[in-house]
Amino acid sequence: MPTLLIKNALLDGERRNIYCEHGRIVAIDRQQRDADDVLDADGLLAHAPLINSHTHASMTLFRGNGDDLPLMEWLTTRVWPYERRISRDEVYWGAKLAILEMIRSGCVFFNDMYWDSHAVAQAVEEMGVRAMLSSVIIDITTSESERRRQMERIERQFDEVRQYSDRVQFAVGPHAIYTVSEEGFCWAAEFARAHGCVLHTHLSETEKEVKDCYDEHGCSPVEYLDRIGALACDLVAAHTIWLSDRDVALLGEHAVVCAHNPVSNMKLAVNGVYPYRRLDGAGAVTALATDGAGSNNNLDLFEEMKIAALLQKFHNDDPTALTATEALEMAAHNPAPFFNLDGREIAVGRRADLILIDLSLPELNPVHDIDSHFVYAANGCAVDSVVCDGKLLMKHRQVEGEEEIVAKANEAARVMFSRVDGA
Amino acid sequence: MPTLLIKNALLDGERRNIYCEHGRIVAIDRQQRDADDVLDADGLLAHAPLINSHTHASMTLFRGNGDDLPLMEWLTTRVWPYERRISRDEVYWGAKLAILEMIRSGCVFFNDMYWDSHAVAQAVEEMGVRAMLSSVIIDITTSESERRRQMERIERQFDEVRQYSDRVQFAVGPHAIYTVSEEGFCWAAEFARAHGCVLHTHLSETEKEVKDCYDEHGCSPVEYLDRIGALACDLVAAHTIWLSDRDVALLGEHAVVCAHNPVSNMKLAVNGVYPYRRLDGAGAVTALATDGAGSNNNLDLFEEMKIAALLQKFHNDDPTALTATEALEMAAHNPAPFFNLDGREIAVGRRADLILIDLSLPELNPVHDIDSHFVYAANGCAVDSVVCDGKLLMKHRQVEGEEEIVAKANEAARVMFSRVDGA
Repeated sequence: MPTLLIKNALLDGERRNIYCEHGRIVAIDRQQRDADDVLDADGLLAHAPLINSHTHASMTLFRGNGDDLPLMEWLTTRVWPYERRISRDEVYWGAKLAILEMIRSGCVFFNDMYWDSHAVAQAVEEMGVRAMLSSVIIDITTSESERRRQMERIERQFDEVRQYSDRVQFAVGPHAIYTVSEEGFCWAAEFARAHGCVLHTHLSETEKEVKDCYDEHGCSPVEYLDRIGALACDLVAAHTIWLSDRDVALLGEHAVVCAHNPVSNMKLAVNGVYPYRRLDGAGAVTALATDGAGSNNNLDLFEEMKIAALLQKFHNDDPTALTATEALEMAAHNPAPFFNLDGREIAVGRRADLILIDLSLPELNPVHDIDSHFVYAANGCAVDSVVCDGKLLMKHRQVEGEEEIVAKANEAARVMFSRVDGA
Repeated sequence: MPTLLIKNALLDGERRNIYCEHGRIVAIDRQQRDADDVLDADGLLAHAPLINSHTHASMTLFRGNGDDLPLMEWLTTRVWPYERRISRDEVYWGAKLAILEMIRSGCVFFNDMYWDSHAVAQAVEEMGVRAMLSSVIIDITTSESERRRQMERIERQFDEVRQYSDRVQFAVGPHAIYTVSEEGFCWAAEFARAHGCVLHTHLSETEKEVKDCYDEHGCSPVEYLDRIGALACDLVAAHTIWLSDRDVALLGEHAVVCAHNPVSNMKLAVNGVYPYRRLDGAGAVTALATDGAGSNNNLDLFEEMKIAALLQKFHNDDPTALTATEALEMAAHNPAPFFNLDGREIAVGRRADLILIDLSLPELNPVHDIDSHFVYAANGCAVDSVVCDGKLLMKHRQVEGEEEIVAKANEAARVMFSRVDGA
């Protein structure tokens, strides 16, 4: 495995050489060393990369196709008719485009939920990033035999994931309580517990979901997941907006990773606001996420940090709510152990996953507070270079193969849309 | 004046050469012409630049200095002690940094309110952009002689502005009803009416401002401005959040330009939301703005468009509220005539103010809807090149003198802060 030397990066206010070997940082000092690859990081700030805790990467193909529409109209006319017949090739190129965009905005890990994990896994492997990929179950209206097929797929993919590097992790992805049968959800939770893998679902995103759950099960969605054993799993729950005090206590007690998607929530007008203070106080883990590009419409976690902070301040009528440092920790630190990543601290022994920030940009001057600049002033373009697993994925804003990915993703989108709409 | 040829820009889906002379577009066609300056815009989208309808440019020096604080604590501990003794040099370098940042994010006009218009005017002239600069009045606690001095300064600056090019426009800037005496505000409004210049103020930003106005004047801030003749001026009012139906009707009747600053409003937790639908329906002009970098903390109108759209959708519980096209028109079209600018249409005869957008960026692919990409997917870094008054201000992301401006603005901030805090 090639060695990498990052020369003269800013770290804790000093210029340091960061030497990476076998995917780890093995030295941080002022020594000159030979390395297979060298990045001249003169004056660039070394920082932990950002973590995207909930997305649907391949949905980049749907970017900007039906904004400003009511949720159900968007899904039924602009998403589902195309997704139903999406090909492996389209999932693959959509994921490549998403990963390219995430690398360019400083993110090297994403927690994904989409069809065809293998297509996404291949994209992850080739692009050099990390991901947790959910094998999805949606069985609410399917036949018993189709449910069985989905369970078998999950079992099979759990084994098949071993063919990939350790940058690819497996999770079980029951989509949501309103798309998965009780039998299917129970099975998924039991499978996750038995095999020690993560369970990934959407939870309490809309008021309707909560009302329907009370009508059907006589309890809240969180209580329902508790009842069927899903909270006892290593659970990452996307959205968690509409929560009672009891729900908050349960999510805290089980240290659930709550993936907060402020842009998507605002854009789709789910109306409620992620109850950050309550969840944080109860012991839940707040993680930041972009959701899919269909409801965002980019994958820039810098933008997401700012909007997360603005939304909490606005909603709570309190400018001190969700500080810059808290927003940054949601995006770069809080969910790291859960996803088997390292947190904010850059030190010897850490995985060699790093981003280098260009502090010379006008919008990042003068510097009073670096965390503030990350959250309120920067966007993803402040990321000059990106390292993952000791390998340089972006060097001074250049990612290998960028033009081809953009062209092929465009072609994949064209094919996908014309398959349904006609040429 | 040098001529400029923009070659092969995308315009209405076709590649065109845009030829600029004497600050105007004089031809849009496929002809090759000689020009003093040539921009190869191969595949870049030509678009009208963005308009920043309310800012305090020089406050870039305060960027990130005291975020996440209650408003009054921020102002009294982190802003006012330094502003009180700010030098012309500091105002100048703060403005240069702001203008550099605005150019880099596709904006070539800003409506400014700050101390020392001449320092800002000099920065505007040198950087090649356009601005309307308010000569400020704040006299609520001042002596009669000090009030007189402020009036004389306004009269003097109204004459002095003629020394600058027509890119610099003059306005009268009574700061707000809570910082300007009734005598001062009446005088300012009368001066603006008599001399046909714009009146620029902050209006109905916080609930407290409205309550205090009722206590003192027995009416709302908008009714108060109506009573003293300020609504009969060409008025640009920043914020306009806390409004009664009567206020909305008055602002509409007078076609007031309401400068909406969603990021600043959310960050400072003014709690209320700009009533876009009501104001638009009544006939007021909605214009987008960044406010100063102290409460944003950047000057990127792309970000502002997205957050404006998200905030309206979220607040109104309606994903169809404030469409991408409406957000873009707030930023590039609505206030154009008021500020003596041209709107969105790129045509022969138009002022040669243009931005060129790089559609090859991953986050802008695939393209389903350009307006959607401007608002939801792009940030200021999508701007490849910028033209103002027929002159190329940014060429493929390079602005002349960038490094010096950043260095000098940093030094100005250091001097300004150490003057009060000690070295």
